[in-house]
Amino acid sequence: MPPAPLSVFETLESEVRSYCRGWPTVFDRAQGSHLYDEDGHTYLDFFAGAGALNYGHNNPVLKRALIDYIERDGITHGLDMGTTAKRAFLEAFQEIVLRPRDLPYKVMFPGPTGTNAVEAALKLARKVKGREAVVSFTNAFHGMSLGALAVTGNAFKRAGAGIPLVHGTPMPYDHYLDGQVPDFLWFERLLEDRGSGLNQPAAVIVETVQGEGGINVARAEWLRGLAELCRRRDMLLIVDDIQMGCGRTGPFFSFEAAGITPDIVTLSKSIGGYGLPMSLLLFRPELDIWEPGEHNGTFRGNNPAFVTATAALDAYWADGQLEKQTLARGEQVEQALRAICAELPPLPRQHAAGSTPGQPGPGASYRGRGLVWGLEFADRDRASAVCARAFELGLLLETSGPQGEVVKLLPPLTISPGELDEGLRILARSVHETA
Amino acid sequence: MPPAPLSVFETLESEVRSYCRGWPTVFDRAQGSHLYDEDGHTYLDFFAGAGALNYGHNNPVLKRALIDYIERDGITHGLDMGTTAKRAFLEAFQEIVLRPRDLPYKVMFPGPTGTNAVEAALKLARKVKGREAVVSFTNAFHGMSLGALAVTGNAFKRAGAGIPLVHGTPMPYDHYLDGQVPDFLWFERLLEDRGSGLNQPAAVIVETVQGEGGINVARAEWLRGLAELCRRRDMLLIVDDIQMGCGRTGPFFSFEAAGITPDIVTLSKSIGGYGLPMSLLLFRPELDIWEPGEHNGTFRGNNPAFVTATAALDAYWADGQLEKQTLARGEQVEQALRAICAELPPLPRQHAAGSTPGQPGPGASYRGRGLVWGLEFADRDRASAVCARAFELGLLLETSGPQGEVVKLLPPLTISPGELDEGLRILARSVHETA
Amino acid sequence: MPPAPLSVFETLESEVRSYCRGWPTVFDRAQGSHLYDEDGHTYLDFFAGAGALNYGHNNPVLKRALIDYIERDGITHGLDMGTTAKRAFLEAFQEIVLRPRDLPYKVMFPGPTGTNAVEAALKLARKVKGREAVVSFTNAFHGMSLGALAVTGNAFKRAGAGIPLVHGTPMPYDHYLDGQVPDFLWFERLLEDRGSGLNQPAAVIVETVQGEGGINVARAEWLRGLAELCRRRDMLLIVDDIQMGCGRTGPFFSFEAAGITPDIVTLSKSIGGYGLPMSLLLFRPELDIWEPGEHNGTFRGNNPAFVTATAALDAYWADGQLEKQTLARGEQVEQALRAICAELPPLPRQHAAGSTPGQPGPGASYRGRGLVWGLEFADRDRASAVCARAFELGLLLETSGPQGEVVKLLPPLTISPGELDEGLRILARSVHETA
Amino acid sequence: MPPAPLSVFETLESEVRSYCRGWPTVFDRAQGSHLYDEDGHTYLDFFAGAGALNYGHNNPVLKRALIDYIERDGITHGLDMGTTAKRAFLEAFQEIVLRPRDLPYKVMFPGPTGTNAVEAALKLARKVKGREAVVSFTNAFHGMSLGALAVTGNAFKRAGAGIPLVHGTPMPYDHYLDGQVPDFLWFERLLEDRGSGLNQPAAVIVETVQGEGGINVARAEWLRGLAELCRRRDMLLIVDDIQMGCGRTGPFFSFEAAGITPDIVTLSKSIGGYGLPMSLLLFRPELDIWEPGEHNGTFRGNNPAFVTATAALDAYWADGQLEKQTLARGEQVEQALRAICAELPPLPRQHAAGSTPGQPGPGASYRGRGLVWGLEFADRDRASAVCARAFELGLLLETSGPQGEVVKLLPPLTISPGELDEGLRILARSVHETA
Repeated sequence: MPPAPLSVFETLESEVRSYCRGWPTVFDRAQGSHLYDEDGHTYLDFFAGAGALNYGHNNPVLKRALIDYIERDGITHGLDMGTTAKRAFLEAFQEIVLRPRDLPYKVMFPGPTGTNAVEAALKLARKVKGREAVVSFTNAFHGMSLGALAVTGNAFKRAGAGIPLVHGTPMPYDHYLDGQVPDFLWFERLLEDRGSGLNQPAAVIVETVQGEGGINVARAEWLRGLAELCRRRDMLLIVDDIQMGCGRTGPFFSFEAAGITPDIVTLSKSIGGYGLPMSLLLFRPELDIWEPGEHNGTFRGNNPAFVTATAALDAYWADGQLEKQTLARGEQVEQALRAICAELPPLPRQHAAGSTPGQPGPGASYRGRGLVWGLEFADRDRASAVCARAFELGLLLETSGPQGEVVKLLPPLTISPGELDEGLRILARSVHETA
Repeated sequence: MPPAPLSVFETLESEVRSYCRGWPTVFDRAQGSHLYDEDGHTYLDFFAGAGALNYGHNNPVLKRALIDYIERDGITHGLDMGTTAKRAFLEAFQEIVLRPRDLPYKVMFPGPTGTNAVEAALKLARKVKGREAVVSFTNAFHGMSLGALAVTGNAFKRAGAGIPLVHGTPMPYDHYLDGQVPDFLWFERLLEDRGSGLNQPAAVIVETVQGEGGINVARAEWLRGLAELCRRRDMLLIVDDIQMGCGRTGPFFSFEAAGITPDIVTLSKSIGGYGLPMSLLLFRPELDIWEPGEHNGTFRGNNPAFVTATAALDAYWADGQLEKQTLARGEQVEQALRAICAELPPLPRQHAAGSTPGQPGPGASYRGRGLVWGLEFADRDRASAVCARAFELGLLLETSGPQGEVVKLLPPLTISPGELDEGLRILARSVHETA
Repeated sequence: MPPAPLSVFETLESEVRSYCRGWPTVFDRAQGSHLYDEDGHTYLDFFAGAGALNYGHNNPVLKRALIDYIERDGITHGLDMGTTAKRAFLEAFQEIVLRPRDLPYKVMFPGPTGTNAVEAALKLARKVKGREAVVSFTNAFHGMSLGALAVTGNAFKRAGAGIPLVHGTPMPYDHYLDGQVPDFLWFERLLEDRGSGLNQPAAVIVETVQGEGGINVARAEWLRGLAELCRRRDMLLIVDDIQMGCGRTGPFFSFEAAGITPDIVTLSKSIGGYGLPMSLLLFRPELDIWEPGEHNGTFRGNNPAFVTATAALDAYWADGQLEKQTLARGEQVEQALRAICAELPPLPRQHAAGSTPGQPGPGASYRGRGLVWGLEFADRDRASAVCARAFELGLLLETSGPQGEVVKLLPPLTISPGELDEGLRILARSVHETA
Repeated sequence: MPPAPLSVFETLESEVRSYCRGWPTVFDRAQGSHLYDEDGHTYLDFFAGAGALNYGHNNPVLKRALIDYIERDGITHGLDMGTTAKRAFLEAFQEIVLRPRDLPYKVMFPGPTGTNAVEAALKLARKVKGREAVVSFTNAFHGMSLGALAVTGNAFKRAGAGIPLVHGTPMPYDHYLDGQVPDFLWFERLLEDRGSGLNQPAAVIVETVQGEGGINVARAEWLRGLAELCRRRDMLLIVDDIQMGCGRTGPFFSFEAAGITPDIVTLSKSIGGYGLPMSLLLFRPELDIWEPGEHNGTFRGNNPAFVTATAALDAYWADGQLEKQTLARGEQVEQALRAICAELPPLPRQHAAGSTPGQPGPGASYRGRGLVWGLEFADRDRASAVCARAFELGLLLETSGPQGEVVKLLPPLTISPGELDEGLRILARSVHETA
């Protein structure tokens, strides 16, 4: 049989492409928790667009609003002009998100990607404080443009910069030193000691759960300690809620559970609701020292995304239903993971166990919150094998962690208990079959 | 009468907002060359989404394709997975754009904004050459994230970085020194002299026409000289065609007229066709040394934009019709600008006249190519006044240049001769009434 | 009485001058352990030129050699030409210092100051490893030029740079976290974790005792752990022995007691013996990848200093006498400090106790090794007061530590037991009188 | 015959050594304009310690003062304590140098090397202006520590840094573009254009004659234009007079002829007079915003150098004799160089001719001022050959320029007409014999 001709993806698209290698098919349609490839196969989605599809694929409520808007020739591209779609979004965001939580933020629309939002956050923090240094955390992921990459931990991604990444200093994330060291002991000593050599930071940037870094979950008391440290030491606290916001951990913002109010918050991924590019920056009003146009970007007003974002807020956040459901689904996941871990042979050493740590299971451990969970294997190559097998069995799962040692579960928040159960059974089978 | 209550834009949105200040209304709908605000006013668009709307607002051909795609639940969010929408786009781009022009490029999808594409271009160039330095040009604009901002000229925007922007060195753009200095004399001396102090650049990044910088137009021979210099001195040539590509100057790529083949090309803005966020990086195959996932981004596969991009290529680039039409419309603009300049009192000193310079008119000069034109006033505050008056008269126009001294004409390429004439008459009247 | 006219020091010399403020007199002559001012006052020296006068002032043996050399018109200024004086030094250094210790080093002469040597060390390490990052320690002091300052801890001195100091990351020095954290736990985790965000360091630079940082003494096992970590993680180990070398802690090199062999060693201060500017860089032969002239400096061959350096090696290091004597004198100091601390009221909180910690005395603690000792007061302003009072009583002492909270004892190694005793009694009295 | 054993220079000293390679002998003594090697050979010195020996080797007047000082146990090492030797120097410098020239400077003693002085100058300028960027010139040489190296032009030396050198931007030195471009056209355009991309500089650092860069001589009007530009554009003007000060070009400061008063001046090399390490920073009093100890260094008060420096000022600068003599000797050199050039075949292309350009001679050109001269050959390897032959004939000469294409004449200012004539004849012979 002659070899199949190379596809246009292989001949024309750059080697940088990534997901298509682990999931070697061509997807055509998607609905809710499922994707369909052009050959008619169905895939259950435990990936959710890396967190951009919290409300599932082509959610019908959002879809209706989007098509209506397009049909009536609503503004598509609006930069930062006033538009009716932006106004509706701002009003909904204020009424549904900010006011009930008593959050005083102003809203900025940077370019519509997460890394654009992080760049804007870092620029603002530096401008406000007049300092260059920013503290980030081990295994943080904040984006791929130079400002965001400098506060990202992954050495492979950092090397892509082609210049030395400076002005960022990593500190240990919660659990990083396995509880051997009091929280913030090192960080605070550096700050209080005028001889420490740490450049005084303008800000600290943190994820409440590190999605790319291996589903590392910060405890609420650690986050509170961090917020308190920032206040005491005159540093702005930036919570990067791009992946964990919009309900991923249960409440709208992932930091709500800790009872803190960051100075600056980034949102992207699921804020647009439908998988359309959109990002937000939120910050305390007194930080709003931007000059008009000092930060800009061509696609910062993606009006179709405003429409779907507004529809999503109306449909899912007007009451507390989704939050409760997410937590319930999370318990369903946790039970399944506990069972999977219980079946496996012992795990010699365990790093960075999470805030809701399972009993140190035999051969694997799990951690998570809401509907983001990680399953880490003692054998570091196992996670990739599990995801590969799951794909064959019709389940989309990706790995995370610095060496891809963690299977990451990130289903749509709208997944049904039955779908969730189906996926967890495929996962268990994949684990079993890769022993 | 009590004062009007502050709008949500004023109370909730950051002070960074910009366009809404010059155009103080709330837009609701748009079609072709016109926008409509919620109060029923109509605006003729000589702005075209800062170059993102070359095919007009809500172009019906693209709209149909987009709605069909959404209706049938096509993949919306795809990262770099294989999708049927992406394949269709890649095939169309290869057949309609690359092959007829004999361009050997590979295609990369960075995050969907222009600055994401520039960041990826700079990373790739540095990685390939193993050097940090990049040369840019006076009055360049490449974006607002830290990598792109470091090669952007505007001091106001640079100051927003909050850190010293390094690794970039500006060189004089074409006409910058008013013809007093041979092209590249300074640049080449720095390169050839081992004692010059210039860090050997990995790459040169250039716009063929500087849109934000004041509609500065590089001559074809200058671009050829630059390409030749890059080849001779082992630097990669990056053409940032984000604003000037997709037909803005006539041909699909703005560098075609010069007969050069850059090593790397960035595209964004109008590549998606409908104003949806999308960006491309093109580069010679031998530069494709990316590792899988070494650069990524959540919204790098914006599939609805693939659909409208494909529809736009099919509709407008399968033959040479649009290119010819753009050049014809450009002549119409030039005639009008010539007349406007001829009426004005003398301009004392003139910087940076363009490649198609008008007769140095009395009090203003103009330059441009295709459907991008600039009208510069001797009185530096005049341009803002003209744009403000034009808005009152129902025409959207923005200023450009380091001090906003240039009125920038950037109508949709699909504008009709009648609409174009109407806008040019409003412009003339606005100039007249701001004397 | 009319005010005294301002001296030329006050009218002409920059405000940057420092020591002359704490010791407001004009010194004229010096011999051995004493300085004499122009008004005939005598001062006992517990400062020793900040470590540059280990053999005392104008040591007669060295003085004879120096005058002979000058008298016979020996080469004074020699850059890196071959000279008989340099050859004599190299031979003596090889025979007396390197060979008996089985140290394989090559010798480089950078500019004659400590910071020149540190700059050369960092350049070489970066060149060898092809990486920019260097790890230094909390409260390190390595010099005031930009390369050295970037690895120096003191925030006040760092601020003088006028640019953000980057490429350096501080790690906790021995005892920094008061024994709450296993040695190198944090450092090693950062190195082993590909997601930590630490740029892989080319080198680690360390002082075995931090003189400026507050007389912080690293334990031998900590230094061995560090050397082992460097070897395991492919980082060069640079010991900055500028202040602690040349016998200050007993043996010629301060790292001998730990049994380690650094990859690179800096020497300056007392290497010239007579207080003349001179510095050395020592490194493993396989690191000697310098191109001829790749680092240079006008005064790198200060031949009179070679002459006194050679005489000092001959006089003091041909046998183990000085080393033994230094350790004995150190015990004399320790006894006195123990007594001083015993008399003082309790010290509420104590940082960074040393490797030979005294019993946590009431109100003060002490630490040191050989003839470098620190006396730290609970009351942070006390140290300055003690030094001021000591000056009035004819004893030169300076403070160290990030806030000048430590009295630093650094007498010449050649001090007699009687002189030492006299000085310690003045110190005790000064402590007593500043209560 | 068995091979000679390797010398200790070869076995022990680093490969970085440089001068000893071109002058493969071991020097032992020196007096006036001559050096003597250990084998009894005599060398006439047209090198003068790279400018550190303007008063010749072991000048008897200075030698007497130095020995007297050492004999009487004057303070040797004094940091920034008040000493009688420093006071005498400050008073002499004020009376003999500053006051007659009406220069208002304050005096700072950084570490005793040139690069230490440059580092201090850059730090001060950045601190005063609150900006990081500094402009330097093509082919500048300011030193080898990271701050100074960043404003040095030579690519080979820059590469030794091991980090990207940033915050410096090169501008064209006088004559750099062969008179094709008006002075400062490019520099001023960058400064006046808010879109140029040049970071606003804190300062400009310049040599009036570039010694290492190839004996490039700036015209007085160019220097005045630069000073005027700095004033107009709020940049500090730093003249690095390390090599060209202390009478090298005739007057004490090399900038006197241009009638300018720099904001900051660095001095080193010959300021100590005897070849002993010493450096000065001079600056306008209003710039003296240093905090006590904000910049320091162990050897910043090299008191023996104060003694010889004072003796040199007394002996050579109390009247205008030396200045006149230097200019007369310069004419003697110029005549000889003119003759040499006249004999050589044509030089195809000539860069950077100096301010006193000779008639474009056949095959070589020359330029210079006072007693610093350069002879540049069309054949770029010729200069090295000439220096090598001169060494064989008993004359020390070094090359300069980015590729060593210039023979540099830098005799002691105290050279006799007969010695000068002898050296020039050897030079002519060396040129002749390397044809």
